[in-house]
Amino acid sequence: MEFTIERPDRKLQHALQARIDSLTKPKGSLGVLEDLALQVGLIQQTLTPRLCHPQNIVFAADHGIVAEGVSVAPKEVTWQQVLHFTHPQGTGGVNFLCRQHGFTLKVVDAGVDYELPKDRGIIDLKIRRGTSNYIDGPAMSEAELEQCLEGGSRVVRQCAAEGSNVLSFGEMGIGNTSASSLWMHFFTGIPLSECVGAGSGLDIKGILHKYEVLSRAKENYRGDGSPRDLIRWFGGFEMGMAVGAMLQAAELKMVILVDGFIMTSCMLAASKLCPAVLDYAVFGHCGDESGHRKLLDALGARPLLNLGLRLGEGTGAICAYPILDSAVRMINEMDTFDTASITQYF
Amino acid sequence: MEFTIERPDRKLQHALQARIDSLTKPKGSLGVLEDLALQVGLIQQTLTPRLCHPQNIVFAADHGIVAEGVSVAPKEVTWQQVLHFTHPQGTGGVNFLCRQHGFTLKVVDAGVDYELPKDRGIIDLKIRRGTSNYIDGPAMSEAELEQCLEGGSRVVRQCAAEGSNVLSFGEMGIGNTSASSLWMHFFTGIPLSECVGAGSGLDIKGILHKYEVLSRAKENYRGDGSPRDLIRWFGGFEMGMAVGAMLQAAELKMVILVDGFIMTSCMLAASKLCPAVLDYAVFGHCGDESGHRKLLDALGARPLLNLGLRLGEGTGAICAYPILDSAVRMINEMDTFDTASITQYF
Repeated sequence: MEFTIERPDRKLQHALQARIDSLTKPKGSLGVLEDLALQVGLIQQTLTPRLCHPQNIVFAADHGIVAEGVSVAPKEVTWQQVLHFTHPQGTGGVNFLCRQHGFTLKVVDAGVDYELPKDRGIIDLKIRRGTSNYIDGPAMSEAELEQCLEGGSRVVRQCAAEGSNVLSFGEMGIGNTSASSLWMHFFTGIPLSECVGAGSGLDIKGILHKYEVLSRAKENYRGDGSPRDLIRWFGGFEMGMAVGAMLQAAELKMVILVDGFIMTSCMLAASKLCPAVLDYAVFGHCGDESGHRKLLDALGARPLLNLGLRLGEGTGAICAYPILDSAVRMINEMDTFDTASITQYF
Repeated sequence: MEFTIERPDRKLQHALQARIDSLTKPKGSLGVLEDLALQVGLIQQTLTPRLCHPQNIVFAADHGIVAEGVSVAPKEVTWQQVLHFTHPQGTGGVNFLCRQHGFTLKVVDAGVDYELPKDRGIIDLKIRRGTSNYIDGPAMSEAELEQCLEGGSRVVRQCAAEGSNVLSFGEMGIGNTSASSLWMHFFTGIPLSECVGAGSGLDIKGILHKYEVLSRAKENYRGDGSPRDLIRWFGGFEMGMAVGAMLQAAELKMVILVDGFIMTSCMLAASKLCPAVLDYAVFGHCGDESGHRKLLDALGARPLLNLGLRLGEGTGAICAYPILDSAVRMINEMDTFDTASITQYF
């Protein structure tokens, strides 16, 4: 599947900056809000940007590598949490944040190792019940990667049809920090040892074991080294779908809120397929997973929040949404020095 | 005026922490949200804390020191902005943020050098039309400091009567970064040169001049070195009122959202009068004013946001409110491992 992502036309930049500078505040004094207003204005090609119908899409799947003992949490937590997020009472971590900030939550079964019920509104795009163990072979086939990209794209097109122009993506997949660490290592060149962390709570011994397993997987890699090949060799189905979703969102000129370590590594992978996707990305937060800060630095990304979150599910991205909303309100709702009768002293 | 601030009873800490740890997430994975839930739970002495009727109070006043050319903005900007914030259309920087996050805005004339109109709902606690120039004498008398503390206290008691249990404070006062720098220097011992910054936009030459003026003011200080004396010698009326407001809010066991450089220096001054006030403080953001980071470090404070804001008016504190709100929602709305049927693997 091919995506055609245009970089936002920069012709509007001067007018947008002039508008932001004319607002009744010392120039630059609203800091990051001003940068975000410029970015969203450019994405939407307007001096009066709007955020419409934010949605958080959680892709869920299982990972064959979990058989090697890389995660402290057992695999069953993936399906249990999927049921939890989609419970009518909505008492998961992602649920209260979606309610607070007016997000619709979509949960996608990309490849959970469980027969999920049909009555929970879970979007069924299950490829199979978890990836293969990539310790000595690819996690998925090329055809399956294609299915991932198409699946992610389809969900995003549905959101666009529902009137959304801003999306955040999250994940649920025990074992997916391992895949993210390998993508990070291969795509940035940062030593693998600096890409591996505690995940959902490994101790030092556990982290060392995880590092040894991932080192072996790396040594056993026999692909062609292309982005697509690395994505399919180590990636989870939920991660491949997130990559497709991000690319589709950028093609449709939507704002993409990027969550934690795993979603940042998906944005990294997406940028290896289409670099222009980064123009549509707003990095929500720097999580607590070791390596996330370095990954953000490698992307030249400045995350909005730094709250020590490491839950995933899109929670860090959703927490950052009000800041994005503030930026859009700023440019639409603040008066200019001209009309406000305030001495412009600069 | 005396304030009696009790430290929150720590007896509830164990039960609060146990409740937070039982929520369906890896332990600690909601980072700062967990710390905030604990803090608010302790302040309110309950496992089910609530945030009620947030209000942002902007104290405004003028500063005699402005005659020495310490600010790039002319003094008239103080009253112009006060009129702007209280305009029925509400198009100032603080206004859109108050609307976004459901804050009521109160604007207090603590000592603006202008005859403000009576029909804008401005709370008239004007002490006089600006402080004296503290280049060689105190900015205000002891009786005036007392008026400040009482004024700030009165506004907060009004908010409590209206049902608020969380307040943010902001300021509008051309020249008030100068007073804040001097308080910071005297109260922390950090060299004055590291406490002085650009304010609303001074260039290097301007900052140097400001530093020279403040150095002279410091050399000419002939008071007794007590917190009260330093507060009145250099402080603005709006700053003195903010100190009184913070102390009153803590006495009433309200959560205090602390804004930028000036409000942080007011919290510092308040803590010199009653150290326990800090238990009620949530530091909203680290602003761009030089010295703010060092001031926060001196207070052992970890600000929630770091967005390069330097507007004042309470804007940084209000931007941080949704994070506080998330923390309270987390503890009230998330399910526990027990009831959610998820394997607790730690």
